[in-house]
Amino acid sequence: MPKQVDHDVRRTAIAQALWRVAKVRGLERVSLREVATEAGMSLGQLQHYFSSRQDLMRFAMEFIRRKNVERVTERLAGVDDADHVARLRAIVMEMLPTDEESRVGSLLNIDFMLEAARNDELREHARQRMAALRGLLEGQIALAVQAGDVSPECDPRSEAAVLIALSDGLRSHFHLGTHTAAEVVSLMDRHLERLFAGSAAQKAR
Amino acid sequence: MPKQVDHDVRRTAIAQALWRVAKVRGLERVSLREVATEAGMSLGQLQHYFSSRQDLMRFAMEFIRRKNVERVTERLAGVDDADHVARLRAIVMEMLPTDEESRVGSLLNIDFMLEAARNDELREHARQRMAALRGLLEGQIALAVQAGDVSPECDPRSEAAVLIALSDGLRSHFHLGTHTAAEVVSLMDRHLERLFAGSAAQKAR
Repeated sequence: MPKQVDHDVRRTAIAQALWRVAKVRGLERVSLREVATEAGMSLGQLQHYFSSRQDLMRFAMEFIRRKNVERVTERLAGVDDADHVARLRAIVMEMLPTDEESRVGSLLNIDFMLEAARNDELREHARQRMAALRGLLEGQIALAVQAGDVSPECDPRSEAAVLIALSDGLRSHFHLGTHTAAEVVSLMDRHLERLFAGSAAQKAR
Repeated sequence: MPKQVDHDVRRTAIAQALWRVAKVRGLERVSLREVATEAGMSLGQLQHYFSSRQDLMRFAMEFIRRKNVERVTERLAGVDDADHVARLRAIVMEMLPTDEESRVGSLLNIDFMLEAARNDELREHARQRMAALRGLLEGQIALAVQAGDVSPECDPRSEAAVLIALSDGLRSHFHLGTHTAAEVVSLMDRHLERLFAGSAAQKAR
């Protein structure tokens, strides 16, 4: 195997090991040594790939983000390009803990956000990720406004921020057991319906 | 001092010490020993008041909740009983990190929710707190619907859940530095405006 590929494979294997350990115990309680054991290597070997806990954390979050992007891309492949409402809903639903994989991802995301709230470097990383997501949603809402599916009075940038905050909050409540996955989806759908209400398309119906 | 009062005073002093330590380092990294040191007592003395970390956590969250109730009560004292929209807004704004005290409270709340997501007993406690808050908001929204300030099509119970999730999400984003306190307030106001739009009162204007 070429050296760079091998390096990536090992780093990914370590991120997967972190995923398995953190799933049970929470990200903030995981030590590098435990991750090394789970990945079947020594601490020294692991440190060859990640010099610090923070370095590993950042990589793990990037790993989760890429998983999310793959899932959103798969979902969008089945949706008509011109159906902006359905496309927006597909992206938003991927932000909710609807299956085992997205549940683990979202729980780790909460851990990460918490760790980031007290760590400047991780916070910057978290901010960049959120800015990218906000941009994606904003663009999709703007297209829906242009198409008359969302009221022109709505501000895509603010609505994108509200969607992210709402999905983050619903996710936490799911993990607390306050809402089931079905309830979380239904509450989000209620919010989306109101976003789409009052549009030209709705009025024409 | 009577024994029970002294007991309460000492427990409150310990909760305040926990608050000061957790503010800087996060709840999950705080040990009982550190809290004892901050409260100016030995670990053995502290354990006389709290037998376990979990016991202390539960008390600390109850302490934060009571602070919140006091703040909401103060805010509501200045609002007309019949002005349901203003009353709802007063409660919701108290859920946002608008000043130093509510910022620390909300950061600890996030820590607590995270710890609760992996701990059955704390989760039950968190669920009860959220159910109480949801009930309060639901009642207030129902009054606003009756008064014609909110559309009768809206379901108070669902809207209450959405308000809590949105404020939790906005709080996290504030702590991540994605939004300023002013932006968080403005995004919430935008959401409330839409909740109040389409009501009989709005239509009559």
